[in-house]
Amino acid sequence: MMIYLDNGATSWPKPQEVKLIMNEALDSGGNPGRGGHGVSMEAARSVYRVRELLSKIFGINKPTRVVFTSNATQAINTALFGILKSGDHVITSSLEHNAVTRPLNVLENRGVKVTRISGRSGNEFSLEEYAAAFRDNTKLVVTLHASNISGVLLPVEQIGEIARGKGVPYLLDAAQTAGVYPLDLNSLPVDILAFPGHKGLLGPQGTGGLVIGDNCSLRPFIYGGTGSLSELDSQPDFLPDALESGTLNGVGIAGLGGGVKYLLAQGMDNVRKREQQLCQSLIDGLLHIPGVKLYGGTDAATKAPIVAFNLGEIDSMIVGDMLDEEYGIISRAGLHCAPHAHRMLGTIEQGVVRLSPSHFTTEVEIGETLKAVAKVSKELL
Amino acid sequence: MMIYLDNGATSWPKPQEVKLIMNEALDSGGNPGRGGHGVSMEAARSVYRVRELLSKIFGINKPTRVVFTSNATQAINTALFGILKSGDHVITSSLEHNAVTRPLNVLENRGVKVTRISGRSGNEFSLEEYAAAFRDNTKLVVTLHASNISGVLLPVEQIGEIARGKGVPYLLDAAQTAGVYPLDLNSLPVDILAFPGHKGLLGPQGTGGLVIGDNCSLRPFIYGGTGSLSELDSQPDFLPDALESGTLNGVGIAGLGGGVKYLLAQGMDNVRKREQQLCQSLIDGLLHIPGVKLYGGTDAATKAPIVAFNLGEIDSMIVGDMLDEEYGIISRAGLHCAPHAHRMLGTIEQGVVRLSPSHFTTEVEIGETLKAVAKVSKELL
Repeated sequence: MMIYLDNGATSWPKPQEVKLIMNEALDSGGNPGRGGHGVSMEAARSVYRVRELLSKIFGINKPTRVVFTSNATQAINTALFGILKSGDHVITSSLEHNAVTRPLNVLENRGVKVTRISGRSGNEFSLEEYAAAFRDNTKLVVTLHASNISGVLLPVEQIGEIARGKGVPYLLDAAQTAGVYPLDLNSLPVDILAFPGHKGLLGPQGTGGLVIGDNCSLRPFIYGGTGSLSELDSQPDFLPDALESGTLNGVGIAGLGGGVKYLLAQGMDNVRKREQQLCQSLIDGLLHIPGVKLYGGTDAATKAPIVAFNLGEIDSMIVGDMLDEEYGIISRAGLHCAPHAHRMLGTIEQGVVRLSPSHFTTEVEIGETLKAVAKVSKELL
Repeated sequence: MMIYLDNGATSWPKPQEVKLIMNEALDSGGNPGRGGHGVSMEAARSVYRVRELLSKIFGINKPTRVVFTSNATQAINTALFGILKSGDHVITSSLEHNAVTRPLNVLENRGVKVTRISGRSGNEFSLEEYAAAFRDNTKLVVTLHASNISGVLLPVEQIGEIARGKGVPYLLDAAQTAGVYPLDLNSLPVDILAFPGHKGLLGPQGTGGLVIGDNCSLRPFIYGGTGSLSELDSQPDFLPDALESGTLNGVGIAGLGGGVKYLLAQGMDNVRKREQQLCQSLIDGLLHIPGVKLYGGTDAATKAPIVAFNLGEIDSMIVGDMLDEEYGIISRAGLHCAPHAHRMLGTIEQGVVRLSPSHFTTEVEIGETLKAVAKVSKELL
């Protein structure tokens, strides 16, 4: 039996609804927005219904401001390249995933100034340093919501409030929190939200997108056919078409809708509560195992459902491999696409072992995992 | 019963293998290249096997030079923005889909010079004009393989040979021909090929990519996590990682592999032969219907499996709607995301009715379609 604790990379299992609805979409065919015939129109309606579901869970009124991309990385690139240009200034954190760091570095080479707010374990984002970082040409604040390494949540309410006070839009990378944690743009001062479809939202890979607040305007990033204004040589300027060129992943988006419907039926608060409990059990158990070093604190309420640890100074890959091969426990070990955050944690060499349960994970599986880590600790230390 | 003749927009039905293999991928989970555990490794192997299949049908030796994108449009944008920069010159045709036209217009505004080779019906691409268009700063030739409106094939062998003689890479948009028509980069002088996964290759939506010849190098287009060299702030420079950021559509790519395997089992030549026969039957039948205007010639051998027509001066949308609502025939009417090509055909107002069968289409369905067009013609003209 496999114990899957790598939901931070991609969630598994998916609800049965996801597969069923994808099979239906494959069977019924149709290219959304391409053609006035019934099949294409129904495919377009199906995509629209998923926009509606997502606008509901993210608290916006206009489903057309949900833009689909193939993953959160493409969504983030779309936002960064769609807003920033030479001469602009952007503020970010030093916890970021490479999905933010790498495009920002490219933009930096093209004349965008980047301020990275430093942090240390336990105070991952210095609000004082941040508030002082704004300049006249600051055009964007971008941070992740939760570290993909340690699960630590950034103070996004305060970050957003300060940005709003300065009139600067705030782009939130919700890769680890969309579908997991309440993210209501009515109350949260976030202007643009990037989400993956295949993690907390329980959809299939190949889905993700942006939720774009009313006051934000992005230049297109990918240009091409939109099924609208076909007679024009230029990209339409209305959403979602301005930012959605080429054939959408209609089948995947249908599946994403299945995942979101499942979440809504379960109650997102219930899902969050359960994941928090599972993580707290993991943390509490790990604290009793000799040699365990935990990252990101011991209170699951302050974290996305991610628990990161190491055993002494042992390479995290060795621990991860043993958990996999000897106990069938799927963690993720090594570096996690966020080098600055690893440097902050002092784990750029060792990496970390990351355990990320979902609400499908059972308490029994958590117990088995703790037993296995204890045995590995005994064997290696 | 529905008669589906809109395979030019997206192919339907898909082979049963596609659904089965996607269900398997959903059931087995795993994020390709994220994590050293068995599930992620198997997902990565599954993606690699599809690269192998595609490199086989496109005649390249290195599967790593097959790069996955979410659709052909993203693939084309990746190539255009990855090669062209201010001061460069590019040659294209006036038949192009908006997937080429719209990004080229943006590049033109950024200082790229664009020459559009004109054509007229029956001679869609003037090779003389083309050969004379090269300049010292010509960095790319880009054309579609077959018009998505009329199905007419461009003389890609000659276009490629001339480009090769000038030392300029040739990017081919194979949206209407990949999986339909032999495209072997060993013999065809094409350097970069952009393909959709969900048309002739019979995969699901959300798939597509680039096949990149050995001598071509592209700057990255989307930056982010690659699962490789995670400690670096910059994008890895090797393929496919340089051009594949963020989580791949693993489930969709698995399905695409199912489509390609099916094609190989059928024999691509057989599939092409059958589609050509079906199109010839359509053309021959349409020629006998009063008021039919055909576009793109009457020889199916010179065309992708697309037959475009109008009835007199009647708006193509009216004809398309009648075929759909009264006869259950799914065509695509109106404009087809290629305004210059419509202007060349004189159909920028009227649009065209496009019939695009697949090898799943039956002769009976073609017969029913011809009867229906004859009735619509009688009714409207």
